[in-house]
Amino acid sequence: MAFSEIAYEVTDHVATVTLKRPERLNAFTFTMRGELIEAFDRADADDDVRAVVVTGAGRAFCAGADLGGGGGTFARRDQTSEGKTTEGKTTEGETSDGETSDGETSDGETVDGVPRDGGGTVALRIARSLKPVIGAINGPAVGVGVTMTLPMDVRLASETARFGFVFARRGIVTEAASSWFLPRIVGIAQAMEWAATGRVFPAAEALEGRLVSRVYPADELLPAAYALAREIADNTSAVSVAAVRRLMWSGLSAASPWEAHAADSRLMAELGGAPDSVEGVTAFLEKRPAAFPMKVSQDLPPGVPSWPDDPYRV
Amino acid sequence: MAFSEIAYEVTDHVATVTLKRPERLNAFTFTMRGELIEAFDRADADDDVRAVVVTGAGRAFCAGADLGGGGGTFARRDQTSEGKTTEGKTTEGETSDGETSDGETSDGETVDGVPRDGGGTVALRIARSLKPVIGAINGPAVGVGVTMTLPMDVRLASETARFGFVFARRGIVTEAASSWFLPRIVGIAQAMEWAATGRVFPAAEALEGRLVSRVYPADELLPAAYALAREIADNTSAVSVAAVRRLMWSGLSAASPWEAHAADSRLMAELGGAPDSVEGVTAFLEKRPAAFPMKVSQDLPPGVPSWPDDPYRV
Amino acid sequence: MAFSEIAYEVTDHVATVTLKRPERLNAFTFTMRGELIEAFDRADADDDVRAVVVTGAGRAFCAGADLGGGGGTFARRDQTSEGKTTEGKTTEGETSDGETSDGETSDGETVDGVPRDGGGTVALRIARSLKPVIGAINGPAVGVGVTMTLPMDVRLASETARFGFVFARRGIVTEAASSWFLPRIVGIAQAMEWAATGRVFPAAEALEGRLVSRVYPADELLPAAYALAREIADNTSAVSVAAVRRLMWSGLSAASPWEAHAADSRLMAELGGAPDSVEGVTAFLEKRPAAFPMKVSQDLPPGVPSWPDDPYRV
Repeated sequence: MAFSEIAYEVTDHVATVTLKRPERLNAFTFTMRGELIEAFDRADADDDVRAVVVTGAGRAFCAGADLGGGGGTFARRDQTSEGKTTEGKTTEGETSDGETSDGETSDGETVDGVPRDGGGTVALRIARSLKPVIGAINGPAVGVGVTMTLPMDVRLASETARFGFVFARRGIVTEAASSWFLPRIVGIAQAMEWAATGRVFPAAEALEGRLVSRVYPADELLPAAYALAREIADNTSAVSVAAVRRLMWSGLSAASPWEAHAADSRLMAELGGAPDSVEGVTAFLEKRPAAFPMKVSQDLPPGVPSWPDDPYRV
Repeated sequence: MAFSEIAYEVTDHVATVTLKRPERLNAFTFTMRGELIEAFDRADADDDVRAVVVTGAGRAFCAGADLGGGGGTFARRDQTSEGKTTEGKTTEGETSDGETSDGETSDGETVDGVPRDGGGTVALRIARSLKPVIGAINGPAVGVGVTMTLPMDVRLASETARFGFVFARRGIVTEAASSWFLPRIVGIAQAMEWAATGRVFPAAEALEGRLVSRVYPADELLPAAYALAREIADNTSAVSVAAVRRLMWSGLSAASPWEAHAADSRLMAELGGAPDSVEGVTAFLEKRPAAFPMKVSQDLPPGVPSWPDDPYRV
Repeated sequence: MAFSEIAYEVTDHVATVTLKRPERLNAFTFTMRGELIEAFDRADADDDVRAVVVTGAGRAFCAGADLGGGGGTFARRDQTSEGKTTEGKTTEGETSDGETSDGETSDGETVDGVPRDGGGTVALRIARSLKPVIGAINGPAVGVGVTMTLPMDVRLASETARFGFVFARRGIVTEAASSWFLPRIVGIAQAMEWAATGRVFPAAEALEGRLVSRVYPADELLPAAYALAREIADNTSAVSVAAVRRLMWSGLSAASPWEAHAADSRLMAELGGAPDSVEGVTAFLEKRPAAFPMKVSQDLPPGVPSWPDDPYRV
């Protein structure tokens, strides 16, 4: 499968996923949705990939759903039709071509009898990534352009980034499961202030509100994202990181620490005597870098939680 | 119903609820409890109300339960008897008149066989408000005076505000469902420090601990609260905001992002083709303010969560 | 039972638990695990203890699991064998003596058929403490040395402290139920950054990331911890604090505020008319310090939640 609306490349053990419709401020489409899911499938399957960086081509990160369908945009069941006018910035003088994606939906694309929210299928796919995911938000991230980043592990932003949970200004609701993610990341007071006003806000407000971990000058953003990715790749067991990622996110949704204790007791039993643990401890004692032999594609222990337990895997 | 211990007025699409027993530092009573619940019922039913601001008359926000009942105050089943000595500041030389409210309790006023905590009935009513709620904390907010603010969306404070989760100093426990709200708002470490010490603390500590979003000079507090309310009223769909408010708070209590995905997929299906969405997108594309036609009183879609799902609605 | 790897003493209503293997940077062992659990049992049973302070002897807090077992350390079912090389700092020139603890495990020491993670048994014991627990982190706190502090109520740190969730660097996973505690304390983005990198970081980063509440010069750490403990001891009802501690932590794991409302309605009914409440309110009205008569050992009301509801109490 060749990608048309994103780019995917692997360099130095890090996959970079680039949203790539710069002439449309990387507005989200049905095609992009499918390509993003496919990209995360590739990253999970490729043992050469230790971390994923997601960024945008050109001056935007993602300007939201493509509104080329006009007033009826969100009435379409895939909510992702092609068009020319986008969130985050209107482009004067353009006309909408209003093309609609009419691809068949599979059984997996409804939930409780209604079409699945498109942003949510991406968010839930990112949520169960086996590789850590770093958002490098290089410009406007509005609507689904910001909600898709919430299941990423860390969000870094450029000083030129801006953000908006603009849904209430369009007559719709916070989507992409953001009502689960956002209040857990920034707190319910901050989440409600942004969601109820629909305000577009700058990187500084995102940092103060803990939506992003750090803000960088534009030309330092990607280097910072890669430095963080390499800190992971250079020092840790890929199997441990995959297990920890699932454990931590499922821990955030666990009913009690007892569930976490049962899960990590099992994983400690499965991994404690495994080659990566032997190497990790031995290398530490010998004061040398560890060379972990295990692979995520083959050696993931059965105790790794499947979270989020998605009955409709796309 | 005329109010005697609060004031309720609607101006410029914003309802203001004012705790109004200034001679008692707005101490909480059984009467005030009922009036607060009634006020939120009115605000929900009135399409002219887009947001609710809650503040206190005089120099206090709410000094806590009225302790006029003396040592036995909290033994009374409504915990809210009338009296003259209040939390937050004792009034020298006063005597308690110790009047007790002996009104019948309805079926809805017990839970698991015990009388419902009075502050909790208010907190759970505010929690399911269909309009966003802004606390404008103008002075001391102690005991139930602060716990009642936790289900509000945003808390703004005056520099003259002070706060205290003083329950352990009175031999009782954190109430008004604050054991659910507080650790989710400020984190468990901050929640436990305030609750275990019972300390009364200034606005600056509340801000540092993220109990309040912003602190203002006294005369700028209400203008800031109204500015935030109008930012909501002027820019968003009332139906979207009602749906988002329920979605976000229920998302905070959802077991997994899958529940959120199911809920927002349904709401996107219900609202995506509805008039407010058509108007919201069209207005955006036409670069004009939106005039949303839908009304909360009539057009709330069935997918809006009922959270908190209160089997004992008062 | 005399302690060999910790010290336990009670002074001025505060119990101090000191991790005490300073020659091993207080590395965690099977023996230490049992002694910590016993220490919290003692503190809970002793009405003279109003709060617990946990700190480390010498220059470390706890350097993690003792890695004296070498590469196979974590393969051992108790994960806590004796040895000489520790996390947090390698000690040059030492050799491991590799002694293994082969004590019988009781029925309570497996969960779902696998051995219980040792750090988790300590964490869950601290979680259900009836006395508030203050971590005074005086130096390196690495691996289980930091995860064991997560169920404490407040963490204070010395400027000389450093922290590391180093598990992925050893080929294992975040343990001690930290996948439940950590993202709730510092947020999932910060939790994942620390857990995926395995980075060792200084006190300033811990403060910025809200892992610790405050940082002090080394010689001011214990005085600050005791001042906080005495603020609790001098002003509050011990029964209220025990009830509030269980209520607040169980509130953090409750599915909805309705659960919290039911729990605190019950506790208000049980405690509202009890002697501590009468004394607390009366003392407040009389502007004198309260002398609370109730004792945790005898007077804890049945409504106090048993959280975490541990079916395998050790």
